[in-house]
Amino acid sequence: MNTDTLYSIIRRKKSFLCVGLDSDIKKIPQHLLSVERPVYEFNKQIIDATAPYCIACKPNLAFYESRGLEGWRDFELTTNYIKQNYPDIFLIADAKRGDIGNTSKMYASAFFENLNYDAVTVAPYMGEDSVKPFLEFKNKFVILLALTSNPSAENFQYFTSKLNKPLFIDVIEKSLNWGNSENMMYVIGATKVSMLVKIRELIPDHFLLVPGVGAQGGSLKDIAEYGLNNKCGLIVNASRSIIFSDSTNDFANAAAKAAKDLQSDMEKILAAFELI
Amino acid sequence: MNTDTLYSIIRRKKSFLCVGLDSDIKKIPQHLLSVERPVYEFNKQIIDATAPYCIACKPNLAFYESRGLEGWRDFELTTNYIKQNYPDIFLIADAKRGDIGNTSKMYASAFFENLNYDAVTVAPYMGEDSVKPFLEFKNKFVILLALTSNPSAENFQYFTSKLNKPLFIDVIEKSLNWGNSENMMYVIGATKVSMLVKIRELIPDHFLLVPGVGAQGGSLKDIAEYGLNNKCGLIVNASRSIIFSDSTNDFANAAAKAAKDLQSDMEKILAAFELI
Repeated sequence: MNTDTLYSIIRRKKSFLCVGLDSDIKKIPQHLLSVERPVYEFNKQIIDATAPYCIACKPNLAFYESRGLEGWRDFELTTNYIKQNYPDIFLIADAKRGDIGNTSKMYASAFFENLNYDAVTVAPYMGEDSVKPFLEFKNKFVILLALTSNPSAENFQYFTSKLNKPLFIDVIEKSLNWGNSENMMYVIGATKVSMLVKIRELIPDHFLLVPGVGAQGGSLKDIAEYGLNNKCGLIVNASRSIIFSDSTNDFANAAAKAAKDLQSDMEKILAAFELI
Repeated sequence: MNTDTLYSIIRRKKSFLCVGLDSDIKKIPQHLLSVERPVYEFNKQIIDATAPYCIACKPNLAFYESRGLEGWRDFELTTNYIKQNYPDIFLIADAKRGDIGNTSKMYASAFFENLNYDAVTVAPYMGEDSVKPFLEFKNKFVILLALTSNPSAENFQYFTSKLNKPLFIDVIEKSLNWGNSENMMYVIGATKVSMLVKIRELIPDHFLLVPGVGAQGGSLKDIAEYGLNNKCGLIVNASRSIIFSDSTNDFANAAAKAAKDLQSDMEKILAAFELI
């Protein structure tokens, strides 16, 4: 998928919501444990319920890898289910991979070639040659970690140079030489809104993937005010606050309602900023 | 495994060699493609051939993930084969994971609980709460990326503070507050030997996992001179230069010879430094 298509989906659905599939088998409704593939069944129902309100979907690899082969099977089945039934959902593998060149090439192949993901989250610590192999695929995106939503993000992302530049700004600046807004996006945590003005000066055109709304406490209004660009340029993710909003037989309806509430707020924001 | 056991294995085998299982299905001997599980068969033969000469083994996740379910199955089979047949091999998952706390907890569970790995490589960019969940397992190790062997490691790992401190030093210093030499090790690339003196001042007791010997050009002699501590404190990895040293029916013997050559050099080094 390219950004033109993504923008047209955003306008049509009046949403920039990403649903995070952090599908922890210990947290899914207990009645699902009696079916053959509980996590896959949970994901299917969550996707069917929330697809009208979201433009992206983001399985978090850790929650699948933690169950080994069975988890990986659920991950592949979920991926295929979304690809087949919802071609207008931008599909993000939240994997936070990154390694030396020949190894990153293998990760890129795993997610872009074999599984046909639209985007993969990538960690920047190892530098350009760890990211480049992901950039060699047309209409695919690296979503580079810049400023993450967790409390200890500050340990190193705010590590500051002689010229008073924090590391996360250096990550953005250097990586601008590796790709462009058609193959790169950036993770900017919703809990770090105060930095958005400076970030938008550097990357006015790039999409930002913004986690941290909901369970982690970030504010959608603040993100929109400082993070929107002249086309939208935001993908805001919510995971636990949507998928685990109810643990009864009614969980899918509850997830739909949580997603619809966010979509409704997003629609108002997009209208207020004259983007739809 | 704890460090006492690891040191006793190093002394017994007169080696600090780690064999990296970067088992790319495109690079394994072609005659293996006719068997049912070529990569698993390749790994078994490589392990059987090199086990007398190595103290650690390091499957690289990317090479398994890139083949999806089948690859993950080979990864699990290989893991179990080593655990069952070679309990004296220190088993490292080269995964370079790291995410917000609740997600890192899932990765830690995947590698330490389900697969019983002794160590996992972890990327530091997201800071303390992304690493801590891995440190809550007794006799298990985080191997934190500090200074990696790839050329563009310098992009961010040498990013320098007002006080002239590079980021990788800050990663080491801060992480010393998170764990100790019984649950943390550090990745220090063999291509960055000039930094080893400074690194050993900061972490005299920690094990260093040193990739980059062989295909990447690092020198074993230099690593030993500046990286050994008073017990050894080094795990030196070679991957491609061992496992792909021959592509005929004789590949396992060739791998054994390549591993034995390195072990022999290591034995001389350990003797010269009076560590055996």
